[in-house]
Amino acid sequence: MAIVQCVPNFSEGRDLEKVEKIVSPLRGKEGVKLLNYEPDPNYNRLVVTVIGEPQKVKNAVLEAIGVAMDVIDMNVHEGQHSRFGATDVCPFIPIKGMTMDDAVQIAKELGQEVSKKYNIPVFLYEKAASKQERENLATVRKGEYEGLDKKFEDPNWAPDFGVAKKHPTAGAIAIGARRPLIAYNINLDTQDINIASNIAKTIRHSSGGYRFIKAGPVEIPERKITQVTMNLTDYTKTSMYRAFEAVKMEARRYGVNVTGSEVVGLCPMEALIDVASYYLGLENFDLGKVLETSLME
Amino acid sequence: MAIVQCVPNFSEGRDLEKVEKIVSPLRGKEGVKLLNYEPDPNYNRLVVTVIGEPQKVKNAVLEAIGVAMDVIDMNVHEGQHSRFGATDVCPFIPIKGMTMDDAVQIAKELGQEVSKKYNIPVFLYEKAASKQERENLATVRKGEYEGLDKKFEDPNWAPDFGVAKKHPTAGAIAIGARRPLIAYNINLDTQDINIASNIAKTIRHSSGGYRFIKAGPVEIPERKITQVTMNLTDYTKTSMYRAFEAVKMEARRYGVNVTGSEVVGLCPMEALIDVASYYLGLENFDLGKVLETSLME
Repeated sequence: MAIVQCVPNFSEGRDLEKVEKIVSPLRGKEGVKLLNYEPDPNYNRLVVTVIGEPQKVKNAVLEAIGVAMDVIDMNVHEGQHSRFGATDVCPFIPIKGMTMDDAVQIAKELGQEVSKKYNIPVFLYEKAASKQERENLATVRKGEYEGLDKKFEDPNWAPDFGVAKKHPTAGAIAIGARRPLIAYNINLDTQDINIASNIAKTIRHSSGGYRFIKAGPVEIPERKITQVTMNLTDYTKTSMYRAFEAVKMEARRYGVNVTGSEVVGLCPMEALIDVASYYLGLENFDLGKVLETSLME
Repeated sequence: MAIVQCVPNFSEGRDLEKVEKIVSPLRGKEGVKLLNYEPDPNYNRLVVTVIGEPQKVKNAVLEAIGVAMDVIDMNVHEGQHSRFGATDVCPFIPIKGMTMDDAVQIAKELGQEVSKKYNIPVFLYEKAASKQERENLATVRKGEYEGLDKKFEDPNWAPDFGVAKKHPTAGAIAIGARRPLIAYNINLDTQDINIASNIAKTIRHSSGGYRFIKAGPVEIPERKITQVTMNLTDYTKTSMYRAFEAVKMEARRYGVNVTGSEVVGLCPMEALIDVASYYLGLENFDLGKVLETSLME
């Protein structure tokens, strides 16, 4: 049986009543499991993780997108995170028994249904993108909600589904398919954000680092530390241990220590087993030797 | 749904036709999955791993024990591994949705059925043991097949099920319940078996080391290395990384390096995630943050 993960992000992280309304279509449905949802008041954003059978997940998420359209008005939305729609992004991640192409297919089906049912213009991104310049979410969302009218004047930015006109309260939506992403933060025993920033620059792809690391600095004043905060966008090519050891190696230059790390949200078993396998120097080890693998077949 | 693992060991590792006959009742049964079987000609022994619904696994293993009784004659058996029966040991390991007590219960049910159906005397061991001196398998099996007549003269060694008389060709059987065990070997870049032996002594429980490590030395002449070979009998209390780092630490005394390690058979996910968590210094990490955990519920 195929299993897909879907991580829709909604532009509401403060009004918990609205949050509950948005996640409600993702509850109690056969073949659909709501794993996690985290409203963030600073970002004024809600990140939801749902998992299950592809068609059933798609239908439940379609409903949730409808609720978000009804309860969120982007004209009055403010928060610290970039966004251009009530449902801002909606990636599908193939987990089991399906390929990336299958996930792209689900993303396209959802895109078509969203534009048809709700009149929200849809951009396809990452692996589902229709052209290369739409692969990067940051590019697709550039200008944010407030810049949508202008964006749609450019024929290059016609949506993949629907007409080139923002929804009057829900804006636009980016729907895509991608690999599982690991949100991974590494703690530094310094309060100097410049050090965290310099280290982030050395390891991230955009400034010369590893191909599948996005990274930046974060202050955690209550703990008197800083963090290098990362997205590992393909852990099969850039492993967690590589990010960890690279940050340790760079931190030495500043006499700073790495004191620990954390995973935000969920992490695929394979990524962690690769870490164990590296540090123990395991020979001939693969997922087939993990007892639980046989329970998931 | 409860899942139990069962790892019966049979005293046949050379005649592959007999091996196939023994495992045959463990194939193609609904609710029972044959994960792995490894006949070892040196040991003249067959280790089988089967997993599934407790009652169904128990019934399938009962059948396999019957076949082993029919095809193995302990009076002509020889091999390098201690053994006292055609089916020598049969541990049940609770994997999911069941407690150790449930596994003990299954072990007792199987014991009763084996003695009744096949007239093979049964000793319960480890967590299923009826008294403390029967917990350790080595003690229960002491004297091996050849010493069974003498053992049964001692009223202290009356079997837990059946009469105090060995089966004329199948001997006796030890049935028990235990935690998952990890068979873990660490490679040393020395051919000096004494060094491997000395290191094994420092880390194993029996000579002053960690409570849940059994260890010994092994030569691997074809690779010009030696190994510290281990059973980690409770990885929740003595972790893999602790064994690994302890061997590294002891090896320094001899100017010897640890060059890698290997897991024999299957390893629980939790044990590997603990390793990753240790080396990355992960904060607030638990199995609930592993994506696959949600697929197994």
